[in-house]
Amino acid sequence: MTKQQLTQHILDKKSYLCVGLDTELCKIPKHLQLSPNAIVNFNKAIIDATKEYCVSYKINTAFYESMGAKGWEMMEETLHHIPDTHFKIADAKRGDIGNTSAQYAKAFFETLPFDAITVAPYMGEDSIRPFLEYENKFTIVLGLTSNKGANDFEMLQTGNHFLYEKVISTIASWGTPNNLMFVVGATQAKQISSIRKIIPDNFLLVPGVGFQGGSLKDVSDAGLNSSIGLLVNASRAIIYASDKENFDSEAAEIAKQYQVEMQDYLTGI
Amino acid sequence: MTKQQLTQHILDKKSYLCVGLDTELCKIPKHLQLSPNAIVNFNKAIIDATKEYCVSYKINTAFYESMGAKGWEMMEETLHHIPDTHFKIADAKRGDIGNTSAQYAKAFFETLPFDAITVAPYMGEDSIRPFLEYENKFTIVLGLTSNKGANDFEMLQTGNHFLYEKVISTIASWGTPNNLMFVVGATQAKQISSIRKIIPDNFLLVPGVGFQGGSLKDVSDAGLNSSIGLLVNASRAIIYASDKENFDSEAAEIAKQYQVEMQDYLTGI
Repeated sequence: MTKQQLTQHILDKKSYLCVGLDTELCKIPKHLQLSPNAIVNFNKAIIDATKEYCVSYKINTAFYESMGAKGWEMMEETLHHIPDTHFKIADAKRGDIGNTSAQYAKAFFETLPFDAITVAPYMGEDSIRPFLEYENKFTIVLGLTSNKGANDFEMLQTGNHFLYEKVISTIASWGTPNNLMFVVGATQAKQISSIRKIIPDNFLLVPGVGFQGGSLKDVSDAGLNSSIGLLVNASRAIIYASDKENFDSEAAEIAKQYQVEMQDYLTGI
Repeated sequence: MTKQQLTQHILDKKSYLCVGLDTELCKIPKHLQLSPNAIVNFNKAIIDATKEYCVSYKINTAFYESMGAKGWEMMEETLHHIPDTHFKIADAKRGDIGNTSAQYAKAFFETLPFDAITVAPYMGEDSIRPFLEYENKFTIVLGLTSNKGANDFEMLQTGNHFLYEKVISTIASWGTPNNLMFVVGATQAKQISSIRKIIPDNFLLVPGVGFQGGSLKDVSDAGLNSSIGLLVNASRAIIYASDKENFDSEAAEIAKQYQVEMQDYLTGI
Protein backbone atom coordinates (compact mmCIF):
# COMPACT_ATOMS: atom_id res chain seq x y z
CA MET A 1 0.00 0.00 0.00
CA THR A 2 1.26 3.49 -0.79
CA LYS A 3 1.17 6.52 1.53
CA GLN A 4 -1.38 8.09 -0.80
CA GLN A 5 -3.64 5.04 -0.64
CA LEU A 6 -3.39 4.89 3.14
CA THR A 7 -4.27 8.58 3.39
CA GLN A 8 -7.25 8.06 1.10
CA HIS A 9 -8.52 5.18 3.26
CA ILE A 10 -8.25 7.44 6.30
CA LEU A 11 -10.22 10.18 4.56
CA ASP A 12 -12.86 7.71 3.36
CA LYS A 13 -13.32 6.09 6.78
CA LYS A 14 -12.77 9.30 8.77
CA SER A 15 -10.55 7.19 10.98
CA TYR A 16 -6.85 6.74 11.64
CA LEU A 17 -7.44 3.86 14.01
CA CYS A 18 -5.25 0.78 14.02
CA VAL A 19 -6.55 -2.24 15.93
CA GLY A 20 -3.84 -4.29 17.62
CA LEU A 21 -4.36 -8.05 17.58
CA ASP A 22 -2.38 -8.97 20.72
CA THR A 23 -4.51 -12.04 21.20
CA GLU A 24 -4.02 -14.40 24.16
CA LEU A 25 -6.02 -17.59 24.62
CA CYS A 26 -6.54 -16.95 28.35
CA LYS A 27 -8.03 -13.52 27.68
CA ILE A 28 -10.58 -14.30 24.98
CA PRO A 29 -14.17 -15.14 25.99
CA LYS A 30 -14.48 -18.46 27.81
CA HIS A 31 -17.05 -19.83 25.35
CA LEU A 32 -14.47 -19.57 22.55
CA GLN A 33 -11.43 -20.86 24.41
CA LEU A 34 -12.16 -24.55 23.91
CA SER A 35 -13.13 -24.36 20.25
CA PRO A 36 -10.63 -25.57 17.66
CA ASN A 37 -8.64 -22.68 16.21
CA ALA A 38 -10.01 -20.40 18.94
CA ILE A 39 -7.47 -17.60 18.45
CA VAL A 40 -8.05 -17.36 14.72
CA ASN A 41 -11.83 -17.48 15.13
CA PHE A 42 -11.61 -14.72 17.72
CA ASN A 43 -9.39 -12.61 15.47
CA LYS A 44 -11.66 -13.08 12.47
CA ALA A 45 -14.70 -12.03 14.50
CA ILE A 46 -12.83 -8.96 15.78
CA ILE A 47 -11.72 -8.03 12.26
CA ASP A 48 -15.21 -8.47 10.82
CA ALA A 49 -16.71 -6.36 13.60
CA THR A 50 -14.19 -3.51 13.59
CA LYS A 51 -13.07 -3.15 9.98
CA GLU A 52 -15.64 -0.43 9.29
CA TYR A 53 -14.09 1.79 11.96
CA CYS A 54 -10.36 1.30 11.42
CA VAL A 55 -7.86 1.56 8.57
CA SER A 56 -5.17 -0.75 9.90
CA TYR A 57 -4.50 -3.90 11.91
CA LYS A 58 -1.32 -4.52 13.84
CA ILE A 59 -0.34 -8.11 14.57
CA ASN A 60 1.98 -8.41 17.55
CA THR A 61 4.20 -11.35 16.58
CA ALA A 62 5.13 -12.19 20.20
CA PHE A 63 1.63 -13.38 21.03
CA TYR A 64 1.76 -15.89 18.16
CA GLU A 65 5.38 -17.00 18.56
CA SER A 66 4.61 -17.90 22.17
CA MET A 67 2.58 -20.79 20.69
CA GLY A 68 5.41 -21.97 18.41
CA ALA A 69 4.96 -23.01 14.77
CA LYS A 70 1.21 -23.38 15.28
CA GLY A 71 1.06 -19.81 16.48
CA TRP A 72 2.89 -18.69 13.37
CA GLU A 73 0.20 -20.48 11.31
CA MET A 74 -2.49 -18.65 13.28
CA MET A 75 -0.76 -15.38 12.50
CA GLU A 76 -0.75 -16.23 8.78
CA GLU A 77 -4.41 -17.21 8.82
CA THR A 78 -5.34 -14.03 10.69
CA LEU A 79 -3.34 -11.92 8.27
CA HIS A 80 -5.09 -13.41 5.25
CA HIS A 81 -8.47 -12.48 6.75
CA ILE A 82 -7.62 -8.77 6.85
CA PRO A 83 -9.13 -6.96 3.85
CA ASP A 84 -6.80 -5.46 1.24
CA THR A 85 -8.21 -2.05 2.12
CA HIS A 86 -6.50 -2.22 5.53
CA PHE A 87 -2.86 -1.43 6.27
CA LYS A 88 -1.28 -4.57 7.74
CA ILE A 89 1.48 -4.02 10.30
CA ALA A 90 3.76 -6.74 11.69
CA ASP A 91 4.64 -5.44 15.14
CA ALA A 92 7.82 -7.47 15.29
CA LYS A 93 10.54 -5.04 16.48
CA ARG A 94 13.11 -6.84 14.32
CA GLY A 95 16.63 -5.65 13.36
CA ASP A 96 20.00 -7.34 12.84
CA ILE A 97 23.09 -7.08 10.64
CA GLY A 98 22.35 -6.47 6.96
CA ASN A 99 22.14 -10.01 5.61
CA THR A 100 19.93 -11.07 8.52
CA SER A 101 17.64 -8.04 8.29
CA ALA A 102 17.22 -8.94 4.61
CA GLN A 103 15.82 -12.30 5.77
CA TYR A 104 13.41 -10.59 8.15
CA ALA A 105 12.27 -8.28 5.34
CA LYS A 106 11.68 -11.34 3.16
CA ALA A 107 9.72 -13.01 5.99
CA PHE A 108 7.29 -10.14 6.46
CA PHE A 109 7.15 -8.51 3.01
CA GLU A 110 7.40 -11.53 0.69
CA THR A 111 6.48 -14.74 2.50
CA LEU A 112 3.81 -12.86 4.46
CA PRO A 113 1.95 -9.98 2.77
CA PHE A 114 2.39 -7.33 5.46
CA ASP A 115 2.45 -3.67 4.39
CA ALA A 116 4.75 -2.64 7.23
CA ILE A 117 6.98 -3.91 10.01
CA THR A 118 8.24 -2.31 13.20
CA VAL A 119 12.03 -2.24 13.47
CA ALA A 120 14.46 -1.52 16.34
CA PRO A 121 17.14 1.09 15.59
CA TYR A 122 20.05 0.12 17.87
CA MET A 123 22.20 -1.63 15.23
CA GLY A 124 22.11 1.28 12.77
CA GLU A 125 21.89 1.77 9.03
CA ASP A 126 22.64 -1.66 7.58
CA SER A 127 20.09 -3.17 9.96
CA ILE A 128 17.35 -0.93 8.53
CA ARG A 129 18.20 -0.50 4.84
CA PRO A 130 17.03 -3.99 3.72
CA PHE A 131 13.48 -3.17 4.84
CA LEU A 132 13.50 0.19 3.03
CA GLU A 133 14.35 -1.43 -0.29
CA TYR A 134 10.84 -2.79 -0.79
CA GLU A 135 8.50 -0.71 -2.92
CA ASN A 136 5.13 0.23 -1.41
CA LYS A 137 6.13 -1.22 1.96
CA PHE A 138 6.81 0.71 5.16
CA THR A 139 9.52 0.41 7.77
CA ILE A 140 8.28 1.70 11.12
CA VAL A 141 11.29 2.47 13.33
CA LEU A 142 11.07 2.78 17.11
CA GLY A 143 11.49 6.43 18.02
CA LEU A 144 10.18 7.19 21.50
CA THR A 145 8.25 4.28 22.97
CA SER A 146 5.33 4.31 25.39
CA ASN A 147 6.82 2.19 28.17
CA LYS A 148 8.60 3.19 31.37
CA GLY A 149 11.87 1.78 30.02
CA ALA A 150 11.90 4.56 27.42
CA ASN A 151 13.60 6.64 30.12
CA ASP A 152 16.59 4.29 30.37
CA PHE A 153 18.22 4.86 26.99
CA GLU A 154 15.88 6.67 24.58
CA MET A 155 15.91 9.74 26.86
CA LEU A 156 19.69 9.85 27.28
CA GLN A 157 21.32 13.10 26.28
CA THR A 158 23.69 12.87 23.32
CA GLY A 159 25.16 16.19 22.18
CA ASN A 160 22.30 18.69 22.36
CA HIS A 161 19.64 16.09 21.79
CA PHE A 162 17.93 13.15 23.38
CA LEU A 163 18.93 9.81 21.87
CA TYR A 164 15.43 9.31 20.43
CA GLU A 165 15.69 12.66 18.60
CA LYS A 166 19.05 11.70 17.16
CA VAL A 167 17.67 8.29 16.13
CA ILE A 168 14.67 9.86 14.42
CA SER A 169 16.57 12.63 12.61
CA THR A 170 19.33 10.29 11.44
CA ILE A 171 17.04 7.53 10.22
CA ALA A 172 14.66 9.99 8.54
CA SER A 173 17.48 10.75 6.08
CA TRP A 174 17.74 7.08 5.08
CA GLY A 175 14.19 6.91 3.76
CA THR A 176 11.28 9.09 2.76
CA PRO A 177 7.76 9.60 4.09
CA ASN A 178 6.76 7.10 1.39
CA ASN A 179 8.59 4.18 3.00
CA LEU A 180 9.40 5.23 6.56
CA MET A 181 7.28 5.82 9.67
CA PHE A 182 8.17 6.10 13.35
CA VAL A 183 6.73 4.65 16.55
CA VAL A 184 6.00 7.36 19.10
CA GLY A 185 4.21 6.40 22.31
CA ALA A 186 0.96 8.08 23.23
CA THR A 187 2.17 8.47 26.80
CA GLN A 188 4.69 10.92 25.36
CA ALA A 189 2.21 13.39 23.84
CA LYS A 190 4.33 16.33 25.03
CA GLN A 191 7.21 15.12 22.90
CA ILE A 192 5.10 14.50 19.78
CA SER A 193 5.10 18.22 18.95
CA SER A 194 8.87 18.39 19.04
CA ILE A 195 9.12 15.18 17.00
CA ARG A 196 6.80 16.75 14.40
CA LYS A 197 9.40 19.49 13.95
CA ILE A 198 12.05 16.88 13.10
CA ILE A 199 9.83 14.86 10.78
CA PRO A 200 6.93 17.02 9.57
CA ASP A 201 5.88 14.59 6.84
CA ASN A 202 6.37 11.02 8.11
CA PHE A 203 3.51 9.01 9.48
CA LEU A 204 3.67 8.29 13.22
CA LEU A 205 2.38 5.02 14.62
CA VAL A 206 1.17 5.79 18.12
CA PRO A 207 0.52 2.93 20.53
CA GLY A 208 -0.42 3.36 24.15
CA VAL A 209 -3.82 5.02 23.81
CA GLY A 210 -6.24 3.24 26.14
CA PHE A 211 -4.72 0.74 28.57
CA GLN A 212 -1.39 2.54 28.70
CA GLY A 213 -3.13 5.82 29.46
CA GLY A 214 -2.35 8.13 26.54
CA SER A 215 -4.98 10.69 25.50
CA LEU A 216 -6.30 10.53 21.93
CA LYS A 217 -6.94 14.28 21.90
CA ASP A 218 -3.43 15.19 23.00
CA VAL A 219 -1.90 12.79 20.50
CA SER A 220 -4.06 14.06 17.66
CA ASP A 221 -3.47 17.74 18.46
CA ALA A 222 0.27 17.20 18.41
CA GLY A 223 0.60 14.54 15.73
CA LEU A 224 -1.79 15.28 12.87
CA ASN A 225 -0.20 17.02 9.90
CA SER A 226 -1.56 18.42 6.65
CA SER A 227 -1.70 14.94 5.11
CA ILE A 228 -2.88 13.33 8.36
CA GLY A 229 0.35 11.48 9.16
CA LEU A 230 -1.05 9.56 12.09
CA LEU A 231 -2.06 6.01 12.93
CA VAL A 232 -3.26 5.50 16.50
CA ASN A 233 -3.25 1.95 17.80
CA ALA A 234 -5.47 0.47 20.47
CA SER A 235 -5.21 -3.19 21.31
CA ARG A 236 -6.54 -4.48 24.61
CA ALA A 237 -9.06 -1.64 25.02
CA ILE A 238 -10.81 -2.84 21.87
CA ILE A 239 -10.28 -6.57 21.51
CA TYR A 240 -10.97 -7.31 25.18
CA ALA A 241 -13.87 -4.85 25.50
CA SER A 242 -16.05 -7.73 26.68
CA ASP A 243 -15.46 -11.37 27.60
CA LYS A 244 -19.09 -12.27 26.92
CA GLU A 245 -20.79 -13.74 23.85
CA ASN A 246 -21.18 -10.23 22.40
CA PHE A 247 -17.42 -9.55 22.56
CA ASP A 248 -17.35 -8.64 18.87
CA SER A 249 -20.15 -6.09 18.94
CA GLU A 250 -18.65 -4.59 22.10
CA ALA A 251 -15.27 -4.36 20.36
CA ALA A 252 -17.00 -2.68 17.42
CA GLU A 253 -18.66 -0.23 19.81
CA ILE A 254 -15.32 0.83 21.32
CA ALA A 255 -13.69 1.03 17.87
CA LYS A 256 -16.59 3.21 16.76
CA GLN A 257 -16.06 5.54 19.75
CA TYR A 258 -12.44 6.02 18.65
CA GLN A 259 -13.58 6.61 15.06
CA VAL A 260 -16.20 9.20 16.03
CA GLU A 261 -13.66 11.08 18.13
CA MET A 262 -11.12 10.91 15.30
CA GLN A 263 -13.69 12.25 12.83
CA ASP A 264 -13.84 15.39 14.96
CA TYR A 265 -10.08 15.85 14.96
CA LEU A 266 -9.93 15.30 11.19
CA THR A 267 -12.40 18.11 10.49
CA GLY A 268 -9.78 20.79 10.71
CA ILE A 269 -7.32 19.10 8.32
CA MET B 1 21.83 -24.70 31.61
CA THR B 2 23.70 -22.88 34.38
CA LYS B 3 26.83 -20.77 33.98
CA GLN B 4 28.74 -23.41 35.92
CA GLN B 5 27.55 -26.18 33.58
CA LEU B 6 28.43 -24.14 30.51
CA THR B 7 31.89 -23.45 31.89
CA GLN B 8 32.38 -27.15 32.62
CA HIS B 9 31.41 -28.07 29.04
CA ILE B 10 33.98 -25.55 27.79
CA LEU B 11 36.69 -27.05 29.99
CA ASP B 12 35.76 -30.61 28.94
CA LYS B 13 35.73 -29.81 25.21
CA LYS B 14 38.56 -27.27 25.37
CA SER B 15 36.39 -25.13 23.16
CA TYR B 16 34.26 -22.02 23.50
CA LEU B 17 32.99 -22.29 19.94
CA CYS B 18 29.37 -21.59 19.05
CA VAL B 19 28.22 -22.71 15.59
CA GLY B 20 25.66 -20.42 13.99
CA LEU B 21 22.94 -22.13 11.99
CA ASP B 22 22.09 -19.31 9.56
CA THR B 23 20.93 -21.81 7.00
CA GLU B 24 19.68 -20.77 3.56
CA LEU B 25 18.34 -23.23 0.98
CA CYS B 26 20.22 -21.56 -1.88
CA LYS B 27 23.54 -21.89 -0.05
CA ILE B 28 23.48 -25.54 0.99
CA PRO B 29 25.00 -28.19 -1.30
CA LYS B 30 23.09 -28.67 -4.54
CA HIS B 31 22.64 -32.41 -3.98
CA LEU B 32 20.65 -31.66 -0.81
CA GLN B 33 18.57 -28.76 -2.07
CA LEU B 34 15.87 -30.86 -3.74
CA SER B 35 15.45 -33.39 -0.95
CA PRO B 36 12.40 -33.13 1.29
CA ASN B 37 13.19 -31.28 4.49
CA ALA B 38 16.54 -30.20 3.01
CA ILE B 39 17.27 -27.47 5.56
CA VAL B 40 16.65 -29.71 8.56
CA ASN B 41 18.69 -32.54 7.05
CA PHE B 42 21.54 -30.13 6.39
CA ASN B 43 21.36 -28.76 9.94
CA LYS B 44 21.30 -32.23 11.46
CA ALA B 45 24.35 -33.27 9.45
CA ILE B 46 26.19 -30.10 10.50
CA ILE B 47 25.28 -30.65 14.16
CA ASP B 48 26.36 -34.29 14.08
CA ALA B 49 29.65 -33.38 12.43
CA THR B 50 30.56 -30.38 14.60
CA LYS B 51 29.20 -31.19 18.06
CA GLU B 52 32.51 -32.64 19.21
CA TYR B 53 34.25 -29.30 18.63
CA CYS B 54 31.73 -26.78 19.92
CA VAL B 55 29.76 -26.14 23.10
CA SER B 56 26.90 -24.12 21.66
CA TYR B 57 24.63 -23.66 18.65
CA LYS B 58 23.02 -20.38 17.69
CA ILE B 59 19.87 -20.48 15.59
CA ASN B 60 19.29 -17.23 13.71
CA THR B 61 15.50 -16.96 13.68
CA ALA B 62 15.40 -14.70 10.60
CA PHE B 63 16.56 -17.47 8.29
CA TYR B 64 13.64 -19.67 9.40
CA GLU B 65 10.96 -16.97 9.58
CA SER B 66 11.73 -16.09 5.97
CA MET B 67 10.07 -19.43 5.12
CA GLY B 68 6.96 -18.72 7.22
CA ALA B 69 5.28 -21.25 9.53
CA LYS B 70 7.13 -24.12 7.82
CA GLY B 71 10.40 -22.41 8.59
CA TRP B 72 9.40 -22.12 12.22
CA GLU B 73 8.79 -25.90 12.20
CA MET B 74 12.26 -26.43 10.72
CA MET B 75 13.71 -24.32 13.51
CA GLU B 76 11.92 -26.47 16.10
CA GLU B 77 13.10 -29.70 14.49
CA THR B 78 16.66 -28.42 14.30
CA LEU B 79 16.57 -27.30 17.92
CA HIS B 80 15.42 -30.71 19.12
CA HIS B 81 18.38 -32.33 17.36
CA ILE B 82 20.92 -30.33 19.38
CA PRO B 83 22.26 -32.42 22.28
CA ASP B 84 21.45 -31.36 25.85
CA THR B 85 25.17 -30.88 26.43
CA HIS B 86 25.14 -27.87 24.08
CA PHE B 87 24.05 -24.33 24.96
CA LYS B 88 21.17 -23.41 22.65
CA ILE B 89 20.89 -19.75 21.65
CA ALA B 90 17.94 -18.16 19.84
CA ASP B 91 19.54 -15.31 17.93
CA ALA B 92 16.28 -13.40 17.74
CA LYS B 93 17.12 -9.81 18.80
CA ARG B 94 13.68 -9.44 20.41
CA GLY B 95 12.49 -6.73 22.82
CA ASP B 96 9.21 -4.90 23.40
CA ILE B 97 7.13 -3.44 26.24
CA GLY B 98 6.92 -5.66 29.33
CA ASN B 99 3.82 -7.73 28.60
CA THR B 100 5.00 -8.38 25.04
CA SER B 101 8.56 -9.28 26.06
CA ALA B 102 6.97 -11.78 28.48
CA GLN B 103 5.38 -13.45 25.44
CA TYR B 104 8.73 -13.59 23.65
CA ALA B 105 10.33 -15.10 26.76
CA LYS B 106 7.57 -17.72 26.82
CA ALA B 107 8.12 -18.44 23.11
CA PHE B 108 11.83 -19.14 23.43
CA PHE B 109 12.17 -20.42 27.03
CA GLU B 110 8.95 -22.43 27.46
CA THR B 111 7.42 -23.36 24.11
CA LEU B 112 10.91 -23.85 22.67
CA PRO B 113 13.67 -25.18 24.92
CA PHE B 114 16.35 -22.59 24.21
CA ASP B 115 18.91 -21.81 26.92
CA ALA B 116 19.34 -18.22 25.82
CA ILE B 117 17.98 -15.48 23.58
CA THR B 118 19.54 -12.33 22.15
CA VAL B 119 17.66 -9.16 23.09
CA ALA B 120 17.79 -5.56 21.84
CA PRO B 121 18.23 -2.89 24.55
CA TYR B 122 16.59 0.22 23.07
CA MET B 123 13.29 0.01 24.98
CA GLY B 124 14.92 -0.29 28.41
CA GLU B 125 14.31 -2.15 31.62
CA ASP B 126 10.76 -3.48 31.32
CA SER B 127 11.62 -4.84 27.86
CA ILE B 128 14.43 -6.95 29.34
CA ARG B 129 13.21 -7.97 32.82
CA PRO B 130 10.74 -10.66 31.63
CA PHE B 131 13.61 -12.64 30.07
CA LEU B 132 15.72 -12.38 33.23
CA GLU B 133 13.01 -13.92 35.37
CA TYR B 134 13.63 -17.43 34.05
CA GLU B 135 15.89 -19.63 36.13
CA ASN B 136 18.87 -21.25 34.39
CA LYS B 137 18.19 -19.26 31.21
CA PHE B 138 20.31 -16.46 29.78
CA THR B 139 19.41 -13.09 28.31
CA ILE B 140 22.09 -11.96 25.86
CA VAL B 141 21.76 -8.22 25.34
CA LEU B 142 23.24 -6.38 22.36
CA GLY B 143 26.19 -4.35 23.57
CA LEU B 144 28.52 -3.38 20.73
CA THR B 145 27.67 -5.18 17.50
CA SER B 146 29.96 -6.29 14.67
CA ASN B 147 28.30 -4.43 11.81
CA LYS B 148 29.10 -1.07 10.22
CA GLY B 149 25.84 0.37 11.58
CA ALA B 150 27.27 0.04 15.11
CA ASN B 151 28.82 3.46 14.45
CA ASP B 152 25.46 5.15 13.95
CA PHE B 153 24.04 4.97 17.49
CA GLU B 154 26.01 2.51 19.64
CA MET B 155 29.12 4.73 19.35
CA LEU B 156 27.32 7.99 20.16
CA GLN B 157 28.74 9.88 23.09
CA THR B 158 26.43 10.22 26.09
CA GLY B 159 27.95 11.96 29.11
CA ASN B 160 31.50 10.65 29.38
CA HIS B 161 30.68 7.34 27.74
CA PHE B 162 29.71 5.76 24.48
CA LEU B 163 26.09 4.66 24.33
CA TYR B 164 27.09 0.98 24.22
CA GLU B 165 29.09 1.43 27.45
CA LYS B 166 26.12 3.06 29.16
CA VAL B 167 23.84 0.26 27.86
CA ILE B 168 26.17 -2.45 29.16
CA SER B 169 26.83 -0.89 32.56
CA THR B 170 23.16 -0.08 33.16
CA ILE B 171 21.81 -3.47 32.10
CA ALA B 172 24.52 -5.35 34.00
CA SER B 173 22.92 -4.06 37.20
CA TRP B 174 19.56 -5.62 36.27
CA GLY B 175 20.92 -9.16 36.20
CA THR B 176 23.91 -11.23 37.25
CA PRO B 177 26.56 -13.19 35.38
CA ASN B 178 24.30 -16.19 36.03
CA ASN B 179 21.49 -14.93 33.79
CA LEU B 180 22.95 -12.15 31.67
CA MET B 181 25.45 -12.07 28.81
CA PHE B 182 26.30 -9.42 26.22
CA VAL B 183 26.86 -9.48 22.47
CA VAL B 184 30.16 -7.85 21.53
CA GLY B 185 31.28 -8.00 17.90
CA ALA B 186 34.63 -9.54 17.05
CA THR B 187 35.35 -6.67 14.69
CA GLN B 188 35.52 -4.53 17.85
CA ALA B 189 38.36 -6.43 19.57
CA LYS B 190 39.94 -3.15 20.70
CA GLN B 191 36.82 -2.34 22.69
CA ILE B 192 36.51 -5.77 24.30
CA SER B 193 39.23 -4.92 26.83
CA SER B 194 37.39 -1.81 27.96
CA ILE B 195 34.11 -3.73 28.08
CA ARG B 196 35.80 -6.34 30.30
CA LYS B 197 36.48 -3.57 32.82
CA ILE B 198 32.75 -2.77 32.98
CA ILE B 199 31.63 -6.39 33.20
CA PRO B 200 34.52 -8.55 34.39
CA ASP B 201 32.32 -11.59 35.09
CA ASN B 202 29.62 -11.79 32.42
CA PHE B 203 29.93 -14.07 29.44
CA LEU B 204 30.39 -12.32 26.10
CA LEU B 205 28.88 -13.77 22.93
CA VAL B 206 31.18 -12.72 20.12
CA PRO B 207 29.97 -13.00 16.53
CA GLY B 208 31.88 -11.79 13.53
CA VAL B 209 34.91 -14.10 13.63
CA GLY B 210 35.48 -15.48 10.14
CA PHE B 211 33.41 -13.93 7.35
CA GLN B 212 33.08 -10.59 9.12
CA GLY B 213 36.84 -10.46 9.64
CA GLY B 214 37.39 -10.51 13.40
CA SER B 215 40.51 -12.24 14.75
CA LEU B 216 40.04 -15.13 17.19
CA LYS B 217 43.35 -14.37 18.88
CA ASP B 218 42.54 -10.71 19.49
CA VAL B 219 39.08 -11.56 20.78
CA SER B 220 40.39 -14.27 23.08
CA ASP B 221 43.24 -12.13 24.45
CA ALA B 222 40.81 -9.38 25.32
CA GLY B 223 37.73 -11.36 26.27
CA LEU B 224 38.73 -14.44 28.27
CA ASN B 225 38.40 -14.05 32.03
CA SER B 226 39.26 -16.28 34.97
CA SER B 227 36.12 -18.36 34.45
CA ILE B 228 36.43 -18.23 30.63
CA GLY B 229 33.46 -15.90 30.02
CA LEU B 230 33.55 -16.19 26.25
CA LEU B 231 31.52 -17.79 23.50
CA VAL B 232 32.81 -17.15 19.98
CA ASN B 233 30.37 -17.71 17.16
CA ALA B 234 31.18 -18.65 13.59
CA SER B 235 28.35 -19.29 11.15
CA ARG B 236 29.04 -19.15 7.41
CA ALA B 237 32.75 -19.96 7.77
CA ILE B 238 31.79 -23.34 9.21
CA ILE B 239 28.43 -24.38 7.78
CA TYR B 240 29.30 -23.36 4.22
CA ALA B 241 32.89 -24.65 4.34
CA SER B 242 32.10 -26.79 1.30
CA ASP B 243 29.18 -27.12 -1.11
CA LYS B 244 30.18 -30.65 -2.07
CA GLU B 245 29.00 -34.05 -0.79
CA ASN B 246 31.56 -33.87 2.00
CA PHE B 247 30.15 -30.56 3.34
CA ASP B 248 29.74 -32.04 6.81
CA SER B 249 33.27 -33.36 7.21
CA GLU B 250 34.62 -30.05 5.83
CA ALA B 251 32.49 -28.17 8.36
CA ALA B 252 33.87 -30.44 11.08
CA GLU B 253 37.40 -29.71 9.88
CA ILE B 254 36.92 -25.94 10.16
CA ALA B 255 35.20 -26.30 13.55
CA LYS B 256 38.14 -28.40 14.70
CA GLN B 257 40.58 -25.69 13.59
CA TYR B 258 38.74 -23.21 15.79
CA GLN B 259 38.74 -25.72 18.66
CA VAL B 260 42.48 -26.41 18.41
CA GLU B 261 43.25 -22.70 18.38
CA MET B 262 40.92 -22.14 21.36
CA GLN B 263 42.62 -24.95 23.27
CA ASP B 264 45.83 -22.94 23.08
CA TYR B 265 44.20 -19.79 24.42
CA LEU B 266 42.56 -21.75 27.25
CA THR B 267 45.91 -23.11 28.49
CA GLY B 268 46.71 -20.00 30.45
CA ILE B 269 43.34 -19.82 32.25
